[in-house]
Amino acid sequence: MERSEALAIVEPQLNKARFEHTIRVTDTALELAKKYGGKLKTVELAAIFHDYAKYRNRAEMQRWIETEPLPKDLLDYHHELWHGPVGALLVKREAGIENEDVLSAIRWHTTGRAAMSHIEKLVFLADYIEPGRDFPGVDQVRDAAKQDLDFACWMVSKNTITYLISKNQRIYPDTFHAYNDLTKVMEDTKWREEING
Amino acid sequence: MERSEALAIVEPQLNKARFEHTIRVTDTALELAKKYGGKLKTVELAAIFHDYAKYRNRAEMQRWIETEPLPKDLLDYHHELWHGPVGALLVKREAGIENEDVLSAIRWHTTGRAAMSHIEKLVFLADYIEPGRDFPGVDQVRDAAKQDLDFACWMVSKNTITYLISKNQRIYPDTFHAYNDLTKVMEDTKWREEING
Repeated sequence: MERSEALAIVEPQLNKARFEHTIRVTDTALELAKKYGGKLKTVELAAIFHDYAKYRNRAEMQRWIETEPLPKDLLDYHHELWHGPVGALLVKREAGIENEDVLSAIRWHTTGRAAMSHIEKLVFLADYIEPGRDFPGVDQVRDAAKQDLDFACWMVSKNTITYLISKNQRIYPDTFHAYNDLTKVMEDTKWREEING
Repeated sequence: MERSEALAIVEPQLNKARFEHTIRVTDTALELAKKYGGKLKTVELAAIFHDYAKYRNRAEMQRWIETEPLPKDLLDYHHELWHGPVGALLVKREAGIENEDVLSAIRWHTTGRAAMSHIEKLVFLADYIEPGRDFPGVDQVRDAAKQDLDFACWMVSKNTITYLISKNQRIYPDTFHAYNDLTKVMEDTKWREEING
């Protein structure tokens, strides 16, 4: 599917601000793919569709989770987490995208998970650092993204958990698994001293 | 088993400072049990033995984890976490204590877990707030302990994760499950406004 066709499918699903965010995530993911590798057309498609289900209403998303083979425990956590897994389902069903690399990047873009694929990392990170984002710590992650993909993803997962805990929110298990897994990667690489410093 | 007999078994296992900590944890756990309920003799025994394996050497603890029915994933995490589960095993084997309430309070006193038993909470909390402890946030937990057992345990689990993340350490899954579970308890009770405030 060409970029223009994909954008034409996604645009009516989003409001203007979210569509512009989508374009920025796409451009950022492509920059990261040029630096760290990845099939550009696949990365582009995953980024364009990553927020496809963002504005489906809550009751509809709940129905999809209840009736389709999606993790039921999502219902015990914040509905903000639902649009990734529901999005992967609907992008396949409604836009006819079958590429599992694309679908898994959509599915996991909010929570992350242990042992993320390369393309999952690209979209996960791009969604966090696209130039429209402005929250504490984002510039450090942008700097990290210039150095190492895993190091930057580790910072995203660490910042996300720190933020959720500061808000007294529960943490979806895969968010926590992403942090533990990436911390292990840091310990086993040249970043060991950096994180133990 | 009487207090004096239990203390006589534990004392040679610990150094002086750790033995004094044990006495303070025991007195604190008994105070909490008087306030929140709990069989005093059972609570006392659990508190006296909670750090029984603290100074077993690392290689010995590793052997116990490898050869006994203990969670193997402990070996992937900081050895500081090992003395609880190994302690429960050795207290049963070496001191002949069979009471499962006592053993589980020893087993989970460092990490906590989801759906902690009443006595597990008493020892988990007492270990954190005993009067010899002095670290950031401990006084808030002491205040919380005067108000509500679950609220205070929730603060311990939250502080523990915040501390570990700030040190870039991985988090044992049960530590994280304790936080999620207790946060859910807070959301479902009068503490909802407090934590969402």
